[in-house]
Amino acid sequence: MARVNENFLKLRGDYLFSEIARRRTKYQENHPDAKVISLGIGDVTRPLPQAAVDGLKRAADEMADVRTFRGYGEYQGYRFLAEKILEFEFAPRGVSLDVDEVFISEGAKTDTACFQELFDIDNVVAVLDPVYPVYVDSNVMAGRSGQATEGGHYSGIVYMPCTEENGFMPELPSEKVDLIYLCYPNNPTGATISHSELKKWVDYARQNQAIILYDAAYVAFIQDEDIPHSIYEIEGADEVAVEFRSFSKRAGFTGTRCAFAIVPKKVKAYASDGSEHSLNSLWLRRQATKFNGVSYPIQVAAAATYSSEGREQVKELIDYYMTNASIIVEGLTSAGLTVYGGTNSPYVWVKVPEGMTSWGFFDYLLDKARVVCTPGAGFGASGEGFVRLTAFGSREDTEEAVSRICSCL
Amino acid sequence: MARVNENFLKLRGDYLFSEIARRRTKYQENHPDAKVISLGIGDVTRPLPQAAVDGLKRAADEMADVRTFRGYGEYQGYRFLAEKILEFEFAPRGVSLDVDEVFISEGAKTDTACFQELFDIDNVVAVLDPVYPVYVDSNVMAGRSGQATEGGHYSGIVYMPCTEENGFMPELPSEKVDLIYLCYPNNPTGATISHSELKKWVDYARQNQAIILYDAAYVAFIQDEDIPHSIYEIEGADEVAVEFRSFSKRAGFTGTRCAFAIVPKKVKAYASDGSEHSLNSLWLRRQATKFNGVSYPIQVAAAATYSSEGREQVKELIDYYMTNASIIVEGLTSAGLTVYGGTNSPYVWVKVPEGMTSWGFFDYLLDKARVVCTPGAGFGASGEGFVRLTAFGSREDTEEAVSRICSCL
Repeated sequence: MARVNENFLKLRGDYLFSEIARRRTKYQENHPDAKVISLGIGDVTRPLPQAAVDGLKRAADEMADVRTFRGYGEYQGYRFLAEKILEFEFAPRGVSLDVDEVFISEGAKTDTACFQELFDIDNVVAVLDPVYPVYVDSNVMAGRSGQATEGGHYSGIVYMPCTEENGFMPELPSEKVDLIYLCYPNNPTGATISHSELKKWVDYARQNQAIILYDAAYVAFIQDEDIPHSIYEIEGADEVAVEFRSFSKRAGFTGTRCAFAIVPKKVKAYASDGSEHSLNSLWLRRQATKFNGVSYPIQVAAAATYSSEGREQVKELIDYYMTNASIIVEGLTSAGLTVYGGTNSPYVWVKVPEGMTSWGFFDYLLDKARVVCTPGAGFGASGEGFVRLTAFGSREDTEEAVSRICSCL
Repeated sequence: MARVNENFLKLRGDYLFSEIARRRTKYQENHPDAKVISLGIGDVTRPLPQAAVDGLKRAADEMADVRTFRGYGEYQGYRFLAEKILEFEFAPRGVSLDVDEVFISEGAKTDTACFQELFDIDNVVAVLDPVYPVYVDSNVMAGRSGQATEGGHYSGIVYMPCTEENGFMPELPSEKVDLIYLCYPNNPTGATISHSELKKWVDYARQNQAIILYDAAYVAFIQDEDIPHSIYEIEGADEVAVEFRSFSKRAGFTGTRCAFAIVPKKVKAYASDGSEHSLNSLWLRRQATKFNGVSYPIQVAAAATYSSEGREQVKELIDYYMTNASIIVEGLTSAGLTVYGGTNSPYVWVKVPEGMTSWGFFDYLLDKARVVCTPGAGFGASGEGFVRLTAFGSREDTEEAVSRICSCL
């Protein structure tokens, strides 16, 4: 008899976005003429950079010709893309990596969700709270948690509160943890991390032989050059950290799909006999068995975003969204709200007015401003009291939404 | 301390293809002028159908325009592609499925490797021998086996021999098994399965509440209409079977990447409290957490292979490779070799001459004919005594290789 992986049964329903959709649909049914604007979803809206489009079409033509056709590529991805990544994402920050430490993939979500497969079930997982749900759900599925608790947390997982009081910078865990998920610029709070704060985590990991799973999917939105763009800017991080990046938000690839993970050869995990095992080799073995590599035309499109036109177009894209972010930050601040993020991140973390809950403010904004946000409580207990707005809408929608929010407060 | 998943340490090295590459390189070093032809690798060589190329370019242009740009799609894939799949792959065979039973993915290898995540670790896995190594390796990584044995098998996995004596049709397992991997047309033997043989497996699964993981990646090569093209042609299979398909070999997508899994809503796995759980819902939850969906332009390209020109071009592609297969079968047969497969499959399973081993014949062909094959022993103990040739080379290479093999025997 085929028995189910009962860890899946611990998962709570995909409550947050389905509940948002339910409330929005209900509102729209009652107000059929209302033009509802969503600043809730983390999906981009601007077209793909022309350089990427041209790359995709050029590669399509190569696939039509027997002399330039490509079959299976390397599981790890094409060298031509890895080299561009190192040249434009890491070298300018003083970070030196080998091309075979780069693993091209179809998404940072997939990578952050699957990387835990390399580790024993008994490792203790630590996450920020509020948190991108995938880090937790993937570990729950694998069996690294107990049941969900009343507060929406899972027993066995260590949650590290990121609150207004601690400036959204959590303290080091008091209990010992083995796998630490960090995300900077942070989804959902929009917080960034300083060199000295990040060093604390690297030092902790080195002292405790822990691994940091560093999600830097939003790094392209950092405007302040003093903020670390990669965890490898911290000395010793290449012994304890894996970093996840994506073309999704940087270059509008959410529907086109390309990302990469950096797995330095020096990062090790330990067996019960004390032996050390390179995560780079283990991840290669995992990818070779459970992944086929990214489509060749898509890798060409991703590489094209690093051409001189491509970089110019990416900069325009980022500028567009960051202007949206300023419009949200300035508008809401002038309306008397307290807001965080939005200066080095596409996410704005808005404190809800005194006496309201996340969901209460969600309903208020939907009803009074016809604007959809994301209730912070959906990202974890410490997200209560906040809502998330994103800069990924069109300029017109963003301006209109901010203007409506301001007039209803 | 981050502890490694020790199941990974049970994996034997990726011996087969690296050993082939090593021997080929050594030969080439000693014979720098020899033109070595490989009929060993299962990768296609013909260009992508023009309809797919055109679809890819059309979708690229859509991504360049804000009015037609696409961000995140459904994790399960676009409906427009699922509908074409049902219309052209299943309806003509009398199989009726819902679009939400189709899960578009980036590869059948990935799907067959990842689907086991839905099941408890204690399920007993059964595989054919010889076997596509991914079914085994993914289960070893997950912890469903003991150590590798001397013969190259893993303890705890049930291997079902496919031999010349049983016509490459294994018997039902004598012990109880829970998860059964079947692959037809078979890689590596090229065998197909009849309606009545397949019914035995479906009946076994229904009687034992087992699940069949049916890999039909090579179904497009079936020439004989009487051979089942889908396991769902067997009554009751939609209660116990998941089917994996791919555009890789059908339409030359090995470097372009698109595939799909069929997970009927009636297929269930069981919890320890006796409750039933739909694999369709579980797989959707798994994909939503650990996958981002296939690139929109790639899905458009895949759908374009079902247009009238697309289907014509796919037929030409299949005919081309199947002509290669006939050339191999006829040539080698006339040279006195016993061959199997190659009539409804791109794989030809060649019995090695009396007194030779798989690797011995590999070396002989490399040395005497400058042809690379794949030693059957690399696919499992029951593959000893055979080598695999593939029809995926160019016509010229295939003819030349066959002619060389014939003259050296």
